[in-house]
Amino acid sequence: MEPISLPDALASFTERWSPRIVTTVNDYDVRVAKVEGEHVWHVHDHTDEFFLVLDGELHIALRERDGERTVVLPRGSVFTVPRGTEHKPYAPAPAAILVLEPTGTLTVGDRHDEVPEHVDATTGHALA
Amino acid sequence: MEPISLPDALASFTERWSPRIVTTVNDYDVRVAKVEGEHVWHVHDHTDEFFLVLDGELHIALRERDGERTVVLPRGSVFTVPRGTEHKPYAPAPAAILVLEPTGTLTVGDRHDEVPEHVDATTGHALA
Repeated sequence: MEPISLPDALASFTERWSPRIVTTVNDYDVRVAKVEGEHVWHVHDHTDEFFLVLDGELHIALRERDGERTVVLPRGSVFTVPRGTEHKPYAPAPAAILVLEPTGTLTVGDRHDEVPEHVDATTGHALA
Repeated sequence: MEPISLPDALASFTERWSPRIVTTVNDYDVRVAKVEGEHVWHVHDHTDEFFLVLDGELHIALRERDGERTVVLPRGSVFTVPRGTEHKPYAPAPAAILVLEPTGTLTVGDRHDEVPEHVDATTGHALA
């Protein structure tokens, strides 16, 4: 096992919204993704989801008990979406994120709106 | 819950080797720390430990079955120390890291050499 450079990992693929697994921690995956435009409204019923913005800016729309709001994460910011909270990530310009979630967690959650063609419904891909 | 800026979190304290918890993900903590000089040889018997270098460079000495080696993580690199592997982090110059481990995990592990005064034996501190 050797360290992984996140810039190198991100340079190894071009697909948007299609996470690559860079390492695992116990039964969790650390994944990186290039993102741009809208993801899809979805919810993880059984797990929180952690986001760290590596480059650019990520918006996450949240449907909470008190209504809908959007959090904005500039580069270097982190946010955890609590389990059971419907959310939709959105990047106004090309960005790169790191996410952490249990191995096997689907990018589109347990329930979701219709998945657009540019969103990869996956549990993450191995690095090339 | 609002996003946390890691630069702001790091600017809120000065202590070395004394992690602050920036968010939790299920029963895991995401912690950030300022580091410089040597940590201490220690081992986590029951959990992997994830490192991401936010600034500077981190070295991690590892005692593996085949002997001792050191991995070098430049800024933007990640590495997971497998459970049961004795290790000692070291930063040749001031650096900043993000670590992920189960809530309650001690910085000095389950077994360790004598803890030097500049190393905080803690399960992480709340952000101010």
